[in-house]
Amino acid sequence: MFKKFKIPDATIGRLSLYSRYLKEADEKGIDTVSSQQIAKATGVTPAQVRKDLAYFGEFGTRGVGYNSRELYNYIMKILGLGRRWPVAIVGAGNLGRALSQYKGFSERGFDIACIFDTDPSKIGKKLAGIEICHIDLLGEKARIHNIELGIIAVPASAAQEVADKLLEAGIRGIINFAPVNINITGDNVMLRRVDLAAQLEYLTYYLEDTR
Amino acid sequence: MFKKFKIPDATIGRLSLYSRYLKEADEKGIDTVSSQQIAKATGVTPAQVRKDLAYFGEFGTRGVGYNSRELYNYIMKILGLGRRWPVAIVGAGNLGRALSQYKGFSERGFDIACIFDTDPSKIGKKLAGIEICHIDLLGEKARIHNIELGIIAVPASAAQEVADKLLEAGIRGIINFAPVNINITGDNVMLRRVDLAAQLEYLTYYLEDTR
Repeated sequence: MFKKFKIPDATIGRLSLYSRYLKEADEKGIDTVSSQQIAKATGVTPAQVRKDLAYFGEFGTRGVGYNSRELYNYIMKILGLGRRWPVAIVGAGNLGRALSQYKGFSERGFDIACIFDTDPSKIGKKLAGIEICHIDLLGEKARIHNIELGIIAVPASAAQEVADKLLEAGIRGIINFAPVNINITGDNVMLRRVDLAAQLEYLTYYLEDTR
Repeated sequence: MFKKFKIPDATIGRLSLYSRYLKEADEKGIDTVSSQQIAKATGVTPAQVRKDLAYFGEFGTRGVGYNSRELYNYIMKILGLGRRWPVAIVGAGNLGRALSQYKGFSERGFDIACIFDTDPSKIGKKLAGIEICHIDLLGEKARIHNIELGIIAVPASAAQEVADKLLEAGIRGIINFAPVNINITGDNVMLRRVDLAAQLEYLTYYLEDTR
């Protein structure tokens, strides 16, 4: 069972954006930022910034603003990013390769610990310095590396089987990139599907009307 | 300027989910579905389903439900998916390769028309049957293929330059996969950043508290 109260997914997404802006501000030597500045940089309203933060307590000083580094550190903690997370990628095809080299993971605390596949021609080779292991070693490697997050980067037809294996290996958070719905059971497990086509649909909704 | 009124991004995301469920239902021969059924299949509340649909008019028959195929077709039109969309991918690296072979695009009406790169060793070759062209041909190919959507799949350091070139070529909708913020100007252009690390952060928020 998840202890944390349920806040809107959209709030989590925005906290992630705020933290990226705060990091930038801090690195530029901007010690204090207002909700207006955060809002402008992330494309939301100042009221939304304040509302999102209010879920977690009181921050900042009225009339002054927020200390950039403090708020950054606090949001990172809220997001569970006060530490590093080892991640398993299943699927050493093009998507798995792309993800294993994705620069955006490491800077947010995610380390690809292992890549898994079943193709004998891939096993034992390395991708971006990370070994490709047979999927049968998932449980063992998950224990050794303390892996709690898994990314499914296999074809749709294999995605459910991979999800089952991830759960069996004790993985508690799964991102599914395969274009198919997966069923998982378990109170203690989170699944999130990333549908790449759906990303384009946010655009076509607006574009269609303006032709 | 966009004519359409601004509805929450989250609503567009959910409409996308509803339409996928409705298609499945229709294919299984389920003619009529209730807001409860749609809600259950997509992980939201029935009230949310009704609220999302109410942005666009009145649907369904009280006490009966919605006709699966009719509502599917209607939502697809709302999302701008009443037709097919040619798409340009810029970047023929691992991510570009993965995207050019992603099965989820075609079934939602997206056709990868062209892949662009600057690497002479890649130009002229094919990826998933699609030619890799030099980025200098972007404008010409966009005109020929009527491309309005572009996907940035290059390293962060090249993303802004690619975005500028996409705009110059008349592309109006851009998805940025590079882990960096891009600035674009223009009333008639939509930009969406897909941050793959942020997807993991939706999980760590919940997982961190439950260790």
